[in-house]
Amino acid sequence: MYHYPPSVRNLISALSRLPGIGEKTAERLAVHIIQMSDVEAGRLAESITAVKRRVRSCRLCHALSDEEICGICADAARDATRLCVVEQPADMASIEKSASFNGRYHILNGALSPMDGIGPDALEIEDLVRRVAAGGIEEVILATGTGLEGEATASYIAEQLKPFSVRLTRIAAGVPIGGDLKYVDQVTLKRALETRRDL
Amino acid sequence: MYHYPPSVRNLISALSRLPGIGEKTAERLAVHIIQMSDVEAGRLAESITAVKRRVRSCRLCHALSDEEICGICADAARDATRLCVVEQPADMASIEKSASFNGRYHILNGALSPMDGIGPDALEIEDLVRRVAAGGIEEVILATGTGLEGEATASYIAEQLKPFSVRLTRIAAGVPIGGDLKYVDQVTLKRALETRRDL
Repeated sequence: MYHYPPSVRNLISALSRLPGIGEKTAERLAVHIIQMSDVEAGRLAESITAVKRRVRSCRLCHALSDEEICGICADAARDATRLCVVEQPADMASIEKSASFNGRYHILNGALSPMDGIGPDALEIEDLVRRVAAGGIEEVILATGTGLEGEATASYIAEQLKPFSVRLTRIAAGVPIGGDLKYVDQVTLKRALETRRDL
Repeated sequence: MYHYPPSVRNLISALSRLPGIGEKTAERLAVHIIQMSDVEAGRLAESITAVKRRVRSCRLCHALSDEEICGICADAARDATRLCVVEQPADMASIEKSASFNGRYHILNGALSPMDGIGPDALEIEDLVRRVAAGGIEEVILATGTGLEGEATASYIAEQLKPFSVRLTRIAAGVPIGGDLKYVDQVTLKRALETRRDL
């Protein structure tokens, strides 16, 4: 920051407020932006304002969407009987990248975390119950994280959905594929052993 | 990128064009920007356009500046007889942070790199020679990098400045302070031994 002109200091400070961007990185990015063409820098600035202007939450699944209904909910080719419940839009993107699921999603926008004051009302759980109650859904896959908060969230949702005749499933936890056992943490190994399956 | 709406895809692709920002990081930053307040996101976008509008190169030293003459060149308290030559604005910022130099700077905006087609004309070397020829400068500290290109640049500049009666110095290369010798690369160790000094 020292001895950069005010406009550059402002940019560095705005960039360093982004997650995972320290002051050193912000400085490097700022210098790069200064060296960009006006068109390219303009495109970056405009993409930030455009996203704030356009993006909203899909009325059905709460995914990020430019329209009232997101592309996946609007896609008649997707299996509407299976619902995959995730914490964040990025989790949905990861599952989409894996190309292993052809149903629809429900994004909670977080996980239960009493310590941070995040209770069921802060998440899209009530709306999930409403979707299931409306019928037509046969399976709800609970794909929240495998840490404490994700587990608590999955348990809570399972409890809420018990009255309905839907199949409730939970993604498997265990050793990542290609993972070397000596690098896998003990909690994961313990779980992988406990939930071992017959061959 | 998959199944994000267009506005989010645009932002991710603009962000991932920044140096050191891969698609995963760009995705994380984009989701964060979406969750920012409108004011904060606006400030980030505006700081990008502002920097492009305002920043120019200081007429004297070529540092980044919002004015025709940068803060350091305009500061009468700085020692005008000593000039520190660096490759990039960020190098100058690093030296300023170290608070170990009270003279002025000359930013080359790069280093000689024949392989990339960067010859002396692409850098602010001619202008440096002009500044020295104008008189009043007693010492030129060559603080270009200690890699191949930085060394070549320092040698070339030293050659150009030989005709003038200025003291030419080069920053020391060696083992970083606090550095554990077993982690220091062999070229640095070799140099540190060759340029050892008597105690």
